[in-house]
Amino acid sequence: MFSLGRTALRNISQKYFSTGVSLQAPTVAVVLSGNGVFDGSEVHEASATLVSLTRAGAEVACYAPDIAQMHVIDHSKGAPAENETRNVLAESARIARGNVKPLSELNSSGADAVIFPGGFGAAKNLSDFAVKGPDMSVIPDVDRVLKDFHAAKKPIGLCCIAPMLAAKVFGDGVSITLGKSDDGSGKWPYGGSIEAAKALGASPVEKSVEEVNVDEANKIVTTPAFMFEGKFHEIHDGVSKMVNAVIGLI
Amino acid sequence: MFSLGRTALRNISQKYFSTGVSLQAPTVAVVLSGNGVFDGSEVHEASATLVSLTRAGAEVACYAPDIAQMHVIDHSKGAPAENETRNVLAESARIARGNVKPLSELNSSGADAVIFPGGFGAAKNLSDFAVKGPDMSVIPDVDRVLKDFHAAKKPIGLCCIAPMLAAKVFGDGVSITLGKSDDGSGKWPYGGSIEAAKALGASPVEKSVEEVNVDEANKIVTTPAFMFEGKFHEIHDGVSKMVNAVIGLI
Repeated sequence: MFSLGRTALRNISQKYFSTGVSLQAPTVAVVLSGNGVFDGSEVHEASATLVSLTRAGAEVACYAPDIAQMHVIDHSKGAPAENETRNVLAESARIARGNVKPLSELNSSGADAVIFPGGFGAAKNLSDFAVKGPDMSVIPDVDRVLKDFHAAKKPIGLCCIAPMLAAKVFGDGVSITLGKSDDGSGKWPYGGSIEAAKALGASPVEKSVEEVNVDEANKIVTTPAFMFEGKFHEIHDGVSKMVNAVIGLI
Repeated sequence: MFSLGRTALRNISQKYFSTGVSLQAPTVAVVLSGNGVFDGSEVHEASATLVSLTRAGAEVACYAPDIAQMHVIDHSKGAPAENETRNVLAESARIARGNVKPLSELNSSGADAVIFPGGFGAAKNLSDFAVKGPDMSVIPDVDRVLKDFHAAKKPIGLCCIAPMLAAKVFGDGVSITLGKSDDGSGKWPYGGSIEAAKALGASPVEKSVEEVNVDEANKIVTTPAFMFEGKFHEIHDGVSKMVNAVIGLI
């Protein structure tokens, strides 16, 4: 055989001609958890993630678990809808414009980085943090994916409440941000999550909505996003910084 | 009474001290049609609208009709979900983070401009264009709102397939864009809508995804958005230009 397959060529290129500048567009996996802030992925964080990824020249691949949502919230009433079930993958497909694969198919050989937008879906569908607090568990595919990318030294980005997933899976000393403690302004309503992250062994760092926290050793990038009661463009820009920091670590 | 209420002060300010520079943040109404490209508002167009509005310093007020969707599409399969109904207002609330009002409550006295993001919801829930083509009708509240803002000389923004609403309501000579005709590239799959708009008396102008079309006389701003099979940031930036052009006409 005198021809090299594309994968082999790419591997050789990466191995022998690495100059710190990637000649091939990176592929970044985005893990969705439904579609709507109160029971799924936060729509604007997910959109900001995808917009920032294509702006940076990355290829995007969306994934979601093929499981039932914990529950369905009628977002116009802020209350659970009775007798209704929705599938996390099918709802995530609304954000992904149909292009979403089962999370079971994601592993670190298929992407250069992975990003988890926030929204209560991260705390209700990808884990049970919303119900159990620091006694939380994450679903097996999230546990597997996070450990896989971490072991492969590929960067992981998370925003809003999703950094709790990293707090649970990596625990001891992992540096994340969940925004700031409640300062009485009403702008940081979810400050309690910081204490839960500490109980899990993580090291939460207080950051404002326009900042990111980078754990260089673990290649984990986090930003508060809608942990802050901010304006749409403030959240968009914070998420964009997180995405760019993730890409910078590839 | 020696004190003037805030509204009175604002009216006086607008009437007597108008210098072409608004001292008060404009309020812009955004009309949603569900949540998901194939049966509701296109998520990324809606998010780009809200992000661009707050970035420009505008106050945002979301509205949606309190009616059942035409149908529910399982976006992971691209096929109708059997035996399922969803409410347009409740689904729109997922994009609006709960802050959405019935479209019946919107009139031109409550906002300085109105914007309609696209997605098939504009052609299935706000009108029946997806089913009837040029024989389409729009729902009464959309007809009323468009005529009301137009009569008040307040700007109207629409993107993607939503400009068909203006084509139907204003017809004769209204200048809009629906993107470009199918050029064989596969990038303009919805070019047929241009002929439908012509049949309704509108004057469609071919524009690329990064351009907007401004009908100065009618104060109607349109942009192709996902009429073009583009990348997320291309659509975001086109919608942002539309939003800024709308604000510039206030």
